[in-house]
Amino acid sequence: MMGNDMGTGIGGIIRTVVNPGRETWEALTSRPVFDVSELFGTARRVLDDVRREGDTAVRRYGLEFDSVDLPSVEVSEAEKEEAFSAVPEVLRSAIGTALRNIEKFHSAQRILPPEVETFPGVRCWQRRTPVEKVGLYVPGGTAPLLSTVLMLAVPARVAGCREVVLCSPPGPDGRLHPAVTFAATLSGVERIFKVGGIQAIGAMAYGTETIPRVYKIFGPGNRYVTAAKQLVGIDSVAIDMPAGPSEVEIIADDAADPVFVAADILSQAEHGIDSQAILVSTSRNVIDLTLREVARQLPLLERRLTARGALSNSLAVVFDNYDDVVSFTDFYAPEHLIIQTRNYGELSDRVSNAGSVFLGPYTPESAGDYASGTNHTLPTNGHARAYSGLSLESFTKRITFQEITREGINGLGPTILAMAEGERLSAHGRAVSVRMGR
Amino acid sequence: MMGNDMGTGIGGIIRTVVNPGRETWEALTSRPVFDVSELFGTARRVLDDVRREGDTAVRRYGLEFDSVDLPSVEVSEAEKEEAFSAVPEVLRSAIGTALRNIEKFHSAQRILPPEVETFPGVRCWQRRTPVEKVGLYVPGGTAPLLSTVLMLAVPARVAGCREVVLCSPPGPDGRLHPAVTFAATLSGVERIFKVGGIQAIGAMAYGTETIPRVYKIFGPGNRYVTAAKQLVGIDSVAIDMPAGPSEVEIIADDAADPVFVAADILSQAEHGIDSQAILVSTSRNVIDLTLREVARQLPLLERRLTARGALSNSLAVVFDNYDDVVSFTDFYAPEHLIIQTRNYGELSDRVSNAGSVFLGPYTPESAGDYASGTNHTLPTNGHARAYSGLSLESFTKRITFQEITREGINGLGPTILAMAEGERLSAHGRAVSVRMGR
Repeated sequence: MMGNDMGTGIGGIIRTVVNPGRETWEALTSRPVFDVSELFGTARRVLDDVRREGDTAVRRYGLEFDSVDLPSVEVSEAEKEEAFSAVPEVLRSAIGTALRNIEKFHSAQRILPPEVETFPGVRCWQRRTPVEKVGLYVPGGTAPLLSTVLMLAVPARVAGCREVVLCSPPGPDGRLHPAVTFAATLSGVERIFKVGGIQAIGAMAYGTETIPRVYKIFGPGNRYVTAAKQLVGIDSVAIDMPAGPSEVEIIADDAADPVFVAADILSQAEHGIDSQAILVSTSRNVIDLTLREVARQLPLLERRLTARGALSNSLAVVFDNYDDVVSFTDFYAPEHLIIQTRNYGELSDRVSNAGSVFLGPYTPESAGDYASGTNHTLPTNGHARAYSGLSLESFTKRITFQEITREGINGLGPTILAMAEGERLSAHGRAVSVRMGR
Repeated sequence: MMGNDMGTGIGGIIRTVVNPGRETWEALTSRPVFDVSELFGTARRVLDDVRREGDTAVRRYGLEFDSVDLPSVEVSEAEKEEAFSAVPEVLRSAIGTALRNIEKFHSAQRILPPEVETFPGVRCWQRRTPVEKVGLYVPGGTAPLLSTVLMLAVPARVAGCREVVLCSPPGPDGRLHPAVTFAATLSGVERIFKVGGIQAIGAMAYGTETIPRVYKIFGPGNRYVTAAKQLVGIDSVAIDMPAGPSEVEIIADDAADPVFVAADILSQAEHGIDSQAILVSTSRNVIDLTLREVARQLPLLERRLTARGALSNSLAVVFDNYDDVVSFTDFYAPEHLIIQTRNYGELSDRVSNAGSVFLGPYTPESAGDYASGTNHTLPTNGHARAYSGLSLESFTKRITFQEITREGINGLGPTILAMAEGERLSAHGRAVSVRMGR
């Protein structure tokens, strides 16, 4: 059955469906995602030029794409000091608080599994080491993405990455926003470059005379940056995860305050016209009250035109029961999941696919976007089915170790010999048999 | 300085260099890697056909590439029972022992960081959930890769993956090797398909009438499989890591038995002509003795022609001191690192970039290839700089959670408001301010 599609009833704002059948979920949860493969040609050409010409190509494309010609792209010590003074004290203090919370949460992730004796005389364990050289990309645009700086740079510092490089496109004045420079410096980033777009990804992937080559590149970006990251991710360097427009699912019941839920929907919607919010409830009345509140709050927003665009990609869904709510949530695999129900603890235990979950009435998504301490770089577009958000793991790798005693190799030897023979790799067997009985 | 290149002295087997300068390391450690991007055209065409036509395309390409036409590609219960009888008891028992060791090591990885109160009234934590649907690819060829089956299927079971699918190309008789079917069944894989190559990757990425779509694809493969994994990795599904030819670095001193070290070099070399072994020592004499032993053992091998080919990609390096040994090792970032020196504990602590490390005289790489319990699916081609080998993490993802109290949002609210204002996202601020003081 196709479900009962109520159309965009209340205020014409969000389409509402009642008890949609499973066969409709794929279409209902489709994301407003761009296919970037059409941009691969452009991205490949710019990347190849950067690889071949280094700084010359970076400067040329800076002029072409960002209309800024900078003889020197590195942020100077003087600029860093100016940035400090240019950021209001209240914002500096807020950045400091957020930084400490992010640091605490990511520092707690330093734990490792215990050493295991898998077989008598066979000990195995893991050790964590930082990715030595990492590159952070922070998009430009009208507003300084200072929270993105913290979410990338703080875990890199906690991980102990030795070389942390940050690239961000300069404004028309040839500068970064001072809040970006301040947040990066406070987070311990030593080298900041005023370079954006495909050329920034290429510079960090291949290295230029000025910008060092890194082993892993992190951070969001526009479609060109995303295409460039995918291409360098194939041939030379690790990348964090596939990027896409932001999204939220909110599960609410009649214990939820419609004012809170509506504000949460709108905070997602103001990100961009390609954002998406899905409201799920077992109560039609909760949906109606919330959407009415969305209609009331929308005109109050500065970014109401953007938010209205995002609401046209959005959806409200009524289900009969919580089994369907959980199945639908796992099917959608939202980047952000807000649960404002009486049973939010029990309900959240049942969810398998989500990036970050916000529990109870006093936990808005914007807390996690900025300052709760969790990372806001999360899997979008259903990738929460297979990817985690950024964490300490993302900035480190684990080396496995094994040490076998003489008794251990004598005991485990016959197993290895039988398997080597089974795979017809006799030299694998010889490496064991020369040791046995010695 | 270019270092003292001694050419292929002893037995004409492995090129030896003495104290190579850093500027030569890039060339010295270059891998015999294929660029698969030229195969993207073919891979894209086959993938698109599988996406569009499903089983029909899978069957057609099975006939075209594997010369086998199977009306039904799923391994039947009868075939599973036959496989059990066809595998010798000694191999069944070895597979059982290896499985238990792998299970023990990966089960110990279930730990999670503690919950953190990052700020008064702000609690954050992680929960691990399995990737619900995973696809395992096991290459075909002359020998059954039963260890690959265990290294993929056992962690998937430990992780709790709900749907585990395995694809492997059938032999000319239209069957899988019984050891592969047995190992998969013993590891808990419920659905095994006799499908290989690009069409197997496409089937698991997009789903067909017979083969279910999965969220993440694991496993090694030939160049076509690698190209296909990279393409589906961009557009729809997660993949484990970039695959490349196998490699080992061995650090030895005069405490190492040249017979052991030579056998370790050759066990790597027999994998394929594109394999690579690098022997590093601070003693020229250790290198000479070892290479003489390699020359002695080589003719004893069944796969001596393959091994000889791999040795032509291989290298022996003498350094003056252990600082250079460690720097060179981190530069090379070997998939496998064997340390057979008196100071192996201290030395291994200093290494940052490696996949799996084998410590002391009685720990050959083949122990880890088969049965120590660590995973043998490891980053090659220098990817150990940024990637870990497969572990429980690879088959799971971590969801982050946060729960904030009323006092918490009142306390942290001003921080979030200041940052939202800094990023000019007023609806983000509103989601907090509507809650403050309530």
